[in-house]
Amino acid sequence: MPVEENVTDEKKLTPRAQDFSAWYNEVVVRAELADYAPVRGCMVVRPYGTALWENCQQSLDRRFKETGHQNALFPLLIPMSFLQKEAQHVEGFAPELAVVTHGGGKELEEPLVVRPTSETVIGYMYAKWIRSYRDLPILINQWGNVVRWEMRTRLFLRTLEFYWQEGHTAHATYEEAQEETIRMLNIYADFATNDAAIPVVTGRKSDAEKFAGADASYSIEAMMGNKWALQAGTSHNLGQNFAKAFNIQYLDRNNELQYCWTTSWGLSTRIIGGIIMVHGDDQGLKFPPKLAPYQVVIIPIWRTEDQKSTVLEAAERLRRELAERFRVILDAREEVTPGWKFNEWELRGVPLRLEIGPRDVEQGTAVLARRDIPGKAGKSVVPVAGLSHAVGELLDLIQANLLAAATAFRDANIHEPKDYQELKEVVADGWAKAYWCGDPACEAKIKDETKATSRNIPLDQGDAGPGSCIVCGRPAKEWAYWARAY
Amino acid sequence: MPVEENVTDEKKLTPRAQDFSAWYNEVVVRAELADYAPVRGCMVVRPYGTALWENCQQSLDRRFKETGHQNALFPLLIPMSFLQKEAQHVEGFAPELAVVTHGGGKELEEPLVVRPTSETVIGYMYAKWIRSYRDLPILINQWGNVVRWEMRTRLFLRTLEFYWQEGHTAHATYEEAQEETIRMLNIYADFATNDAAIPVVTGRKSDAEKFAGADASYSIEAMMGNKWALQAGTSHNLGQNFAKAFNIQYLDRNNELQYCWTTSWGLSTRIIGGIIMVHGDDQGLKFPPKLAPYQVVIIPIWRTEDQKSTVLEAAERLRRELAERFRVILDAREEVTPGWKFNEWELRGVPLRLEIGPRDVEQGTAVLARRDIPGKAGKSVVPVAGLSHAVGELLDLIQANLLAAATAFRDANIHEPKDYQELKEVVADGWAKAYWCGDPACEAKIKDETKATSRNIPLDQGDAGPGSCIVCGRPAKEWAYWARAY
Repeated sequence: MPVEENVTDEKKLTPRAQDFSAWYNEVVVRAELADYAPVRGCMVVRPYGTALWENCQQSLDRRFKETGHQNALFPLLIPMSFLQKEAQHVEGFAPELAVVTHGGGKELEEPLVVRPTSETVIGYMYAKWIRSYRDLPILINQWGNVVRWEMRTRLFLRTLEFYWQEGHTAHATYEEAQEETIRMLNIYADFATNDAAIPVVTGRKSDAEKFAGADASYSIEAMMGNKWALQAGTSHNLGQNFAKAFNIQYLDRNNELQYCWTTSWGLSTRIIGGIIMVHGDDQGLKFPPKLAPYQVVIIPIWRTEDQKSTVLEAAERLRRELAERFRVILDAREEVTPGWKFNEWELRGVPLRLEIGPRDVEQGTAVLARRDIPGKAGKSVVPVAGLSHAVGELLDLIQANLLAAATAFRDANIHEPKDYQELKEVVADGWAKAYWCGDPACEAKIKDETKATSRNIPLDQGDAGPGSCIVCGRPAKEWAYWARAY
Repeated sequence: MPVEENVTDEKKLTPRAQDFSAWYNEVVVRAELADYAPVRGCMVVRPYGTALWENCQQSLDRRFKETGHQNALFPLLIPMSFLQKEAQHVEGFAPELAVVTHGGGKELEEPLVVRPTSETVIGYMYAKWIRSYRDLPILINQWGNVVRWEMRTRLFLRTLEFYWQEGHTAHATYEEAQEETIRMLNIYADFATNDAAIPVVTGRKSDAEKFAGADASYSIEAMMGNKWALQAGTSHNLGQNFAKAFNIQYLDRNNELQYCWTTSWGLSTRIIGGIIMVHGDDQGLKFPPKLAPYQVVIIPIWRTEDQKSTVLEAAERLRRELAERFRVILDAREEVTPGWKFNEWELRGVPLRLEIGPRDVEQGTAVLARRDIPGKAGKSVVPVAGLSHAVGELLDLIQANLLAAATAFRDANIHEPKDYQELKEVVADGWAKAYWCGDPACEAKIKDETKATSRNIPLDQGDAGPGSCIVCGRPAKEWAYWARAY
């Protein structure tokens, strides 16, 4: 079996600089993360993508439970009339609904919608469950699928059906609801930064960009490899809007009936699109070790049949040892060469490759190759004694390096334009940080003329004082990020 | 705070002997396992029920992964025409479909069904993915929701939407597919017996009872507290039926195109109904420790304010210690009495209750009360030193005792009628074990005249040789179980 490291042209991805969008679609399908389902705009998440999503789920679920949340399962089908109870909500979601009109061979008396989000039906149940202040807060999360009839779709980023979690909480006071809204926003930021190695900005959405039915929406925003922004998680203070629409009331300590204050917050399989687009390069994916389906791939190398059995035995020993602490796969296929495997597992983003050949077995060593540092610089020969420790240290380094690289890239591509003309130039290839007076007309002008939208108004405004609006020049209390976005 | 152990009548459940069905509905709702959703026949699984389901999921998922299966996510919406490609399949499922006719405000060109099960769409994807024998077997499982438009519904046992896992595998040969079918059946039996403490019979379904589109279906069947049967998991050898309908083909080693052999297997939230009905008593639920959302509830008892702080501190110390090994909750509410809490947590099925009062704190002891053994006989005073060990041992005993009790109950209620007349009497209040010639007419006669159906034909036929059919007297090769069933 010859060792050859050449990439065949057939296997090469479209370079990102040439066509980022084509690169994205190719890498998702070739890495077997997802595939197109028979229904337009729907996706199949393949085992490799599902393993990645399950790791995201575990990371988030742990954080939710640590902060007192419990999971529950609410129904997929919602009476159409429920959507209409909150005016803004129905306005926002009506154009995107999938509608069930027939069940069990008969036309239904009232059409049902496949949930696009669950505020309405959960509000209905909360109204049933909540009696007094003793029942509050209610802190519930749901893992599930939702359907929104999108016209322009893309695997993971925007599909008709997608997978997510949606948290829904009810509180006695505005202050508690607001505290919860920000708590969950920060949990998303913590997950994105520390597990997905994606630096994010936390901030408030503009009224034009907020959730249909919210008093205030907050988001985490990340910069992709093409400098577009991705909204990667949102948290909403719903005020008393849904409480009033669904009569979610409680008796307070004075035995008086009060409306609850509710929140909702969600993060979806979209984050996988973010992980791909933040870390990927022209060779393919680069997964952060904390979420990677496989953290280490072992590739045995041999030429003769004698060598084969020795090498495979040693490789299997190492696999067993590493499997105690890491997610590891041994690729012992014989129909493809080691070089082919190198390329395939680079494409699939495995953080660390372990190569073991006959000479390594003799010398009690193995070669470790980092996905995040190409070529010789990323390779090291390590003794197999203490291998697990070395692997652990390298994975930590890779995790930190991915975050550092993404942060440096982002920071290098955020600009502070001094006037509107410069803003127009900047957002063609980066983010702009610019004051805004808050007038929707100024926001709309930027969108119309540059395709950039306000991403969010960061909670951390730094030590900048008030300024003047980049569009109209009027006084502005806050600055926002502006960028093209998915 | 007075200590009183009286049950208020209001809290009492309908006794099982009086109305098993009413008892079931009451206990599900009062224990807050599930609730009725606004759409007829749909359910909300509340946090307590969801925690139970998540424990079931983890137990099964571990077994699936140990046997080489991976998870994936297939779409909720399936083109109507897909269902029609397998003749038996559409005949079985057409009456139960929920149909989406409108999306994004427009009528769809082809209606979509909300998946009732996913053989069709998964078959379509497998046909795309499988090229050669090297791609086989494909061993994929999906956790998700499905919708079947049932007319008579009951929480957990039969709902329009339910949660389940569905495994779908493709193989090169019939033998491998059959081996997989039985392997997964045995995994269900292992889970039911060892984790849910439910003794089950594994066997083949009759043609009348098999899955629409299968060559052969197998089930695990369990006896409920009212002696009805519950089919608690099924595994199907689909032969080449779906492979031919969806063109799932592979090139064999001789480069010849062959059809695959496929299987599917599923277990749903129905198992929760089984856990309730097998173990529950007139006081409420009795959860097996391995799946219980909480394995231990700690109830502090005090009279004076002085005692309160001492007792609560000690209770919290024990909670922290036990939480390292067990799922534990400390119920420190002040608005209800300890006696009220005893009843509530008995109703909710927590296997072990730990009581701690002022004298216990002084003496360094605690009281442990078993849910499976009522009254004094189930109580013991244990030193808090080594508590964790004592709790672990008791939970193991409870787990074993629940299985033993359920097994004894089942075995005492399986009868071997000597003629058809006796079969009719037996199945009015138990299961019958009886030979059957295999003629659907004999099976239909039993169903029409007794409401009992053939549950399954056990794989283990014991050392019984051939016999004669309990209905018609003709020679019969095998015996089956017959019972009223959910």
